[in-house]
Parts: sequence; structure tokens; C-alpha cells
Amino acid sequence: MSNTLMILAHPVIENSIGNKIISDNFSKADNTEVRHLDKLYPDFNIDVNAEQEALLKADTIIFQFPLFWYNMPAMLKHWIDKVFEYGFAFGTGAQLTGKKVVLSFTIGSPVSSYPNEIIQKIAFPFQGLAEYCKLQYLGEIFCNDINGYSEAAKENATDIANKHAQKLLELINN
Amino acid sequence: MSNTLMILAHPVIENSIGNKIISDNFSKADNTEVRHLDKLYPDFNIDVNAEQEALLKADTIIFQFPLFWYNMPAMLKHWIDKVFEYGFAFGTGAQLTGKKVVLSFTIGSPVSSYPNEIIQKIAFPFQGLAEYCKLQYLGEIFCNDINGYSEAAKENATDIANKHAQKLLELINN
Repeated sequence: MSNTLMILAHPVIENSIGNKIISDNFSKADNTEVRHLDKLYPDFNIDVNAEQEALLKADTIIFQFPLFWYNMPAMLKHWIDKVFEYGFAFGTGAQLTGKKVVLSFTIGSPVSSYPNEIIQKIAFPFQGLAEYCKLQYLGEIFCNDINGYSEAAKENATDIANKHAQKLLELINN
Repeated sequence: MSNTLMILAHPVIENSIGNKIISDNFSKADNTEVRHLDKLYPDFNIDVNAEQEALLKADTIIFQFPLFWYNMPAMLKHWIDKVFEYGFAFGTGAQLTGKKVVLSFTIGSPVSSYPNEIIQKIAFPFQGLAEYCKLQYLGEIFCNDINGYSEAAKENATDIANKHAQKLLELINN
């Protein structure tokens, strides 16, 4: 069986609609692990060895997060900066070669502001990381309108997030 | 006189070549302030009020950092996520409208891997931030080959960083 690891970054998951639904659904599937960085490292003090061990066990890595300012949350960037070390992720002794990577994120705003050109700019740092570390980049799954601005918006976001969760599970089961 | 604020993110400035030269040169100019986030907030516990006050006093804001994984360092992203709040940076009561923004960063690798298309992808989250908060985005100043892989590389990087510092000072003095 192949193992899938979700690296989840969300500062207030209790208030989350999309990332909560997606990560909860994912965690119920077989051979999956969710590492919620903000819960594990509330003081930003990342256990690099533990994170590298989790990566070594995974065949597929999912980066899961809400989009903040056209970019990943700071916690996920911190994790990448600390964990993707020379001699582990790239260079002599690199150990991640060939693992699969999926980008999975939620956007509060409507789809009209996010044509493919923008999505590709958002995905670029992950695509670059994958190329540099010789990972297989499988692409992006994202959804829009994930916000709780009203009761109707929350209901709509719940629907959309459930569909997103489904897509993600189909991808890792194929 | 117009005030220029440099928001500097570098986790080990003692070992820096480029960001040290650029920020040192900048700090000697009139009406400038450098806020080195990693020194101010080694535990990532950002004083949002202090940062917002510094922004209010500035006419021009420079984001200064070394490129890590095709993106800003985590500390700078954390600062943006915390400081650019609704009601301060955007939305009702937004107070940064019209301020100027400059992106200033150093790259370890040679220029050949960084055509303009890539630079624009790197700059995109800052361009998006500026647009959303109605700041004037003045563009990017960046330099390549900023690394200390050998004594010759260090000398070359020192030269390049001095030129970068010069360009930045010319820009803010115009």
C-alpha cells in the first residue's frame, strides 16, 4: 500500500470550513497521515528530524492550506525552510527523489479573480521546490468561495469543500 | 523629507553577504529605518501595533530578503500575515493607501535561471498585496550570485551587493 502524508497549515482550524472538511475526510482514508503544523508547533519550533522521518515514510505528499496573500501561510513556509535541508531534500544524499507532490488549497474569493495564469504563479514556489528536489509534481487542486461571510456562504463553502475532498481522495487512490 | 522603512528578513544576518551590505548601506542614509524581523522577533511573536506604527510613519516600504525556495523567508510571510490586518491595511479604515513599495532581494544562484518570467512569479504575492491594499508598487531590485561558496564567490557577491545597495539608494532618493 502506498502512504500519503498531508502537511496541513492553518492557524485556527477550529474556525476553518474548507481545510477542516478536507483534512478530516483525508484522515479517514487508509494509509494516510495528517500533520497539522500549527498544532504540532504553536511556537514555530519545528522538530526537523520528526518531519523528515514522516516524509521518508510517504510516497505522496499533499500540501494543504488556505491561501493567504496569494501565498502559503507562514507556518508552511517555515516548515519548508527548515525541513528541506541540503543532504536530505537535495544535493549529495538527497532522499526524496521520485516522491509525488500534490498542492491542495482553498481560496476565500470567487473564481473570477483566479484565472489559470494566477494559479500558476501561486503554485510556482511548489513547482520549483519539486523540480529542485526531483519530486513528481502532480498538480494543483484548489477551490474558491471558501468563506463564512454569511450562513448561505458557509453552506456553499461546505458543499464546495466536500467536492474538493472527494477529488483529492480520487487522486490519491488512482 | 520622506521616510523610508526597510522590513528586513534574514535568519542569520551575521553570515549574510548581500542582505548585510544592502541593509547597512541603507541604514546610513537619511530618514531611513531598518526593522530586522529575526532580531526583533526571534520567537516569531510579532508586536503588531509596533509594526503598524512603523508602517504609518513610512512613505516608502522596502521588503528586503534573500530568496528561499522561490519565495520570501517564512518570517517575512508571518509579518505580512499578522500586520496587514483588515481595517488597517485594507477594507474600511485602511491606512496605507498610496504608500510606495519596493521589492529588494538577493538570489544565490546565477542569473541564467532567473528570466523575467520567473522574477514576475516571485514578485507576484507582493504585487497582489500592493494592489489589494492600494499601495504603489515601484518594482523589483534583485541581484544574483550572492553566495559564499568560495573566496572568489564572496568577493564577487560583495561587489554585486554594493551595486544593488547603490541602486536602492538612487531609487529612494528620486
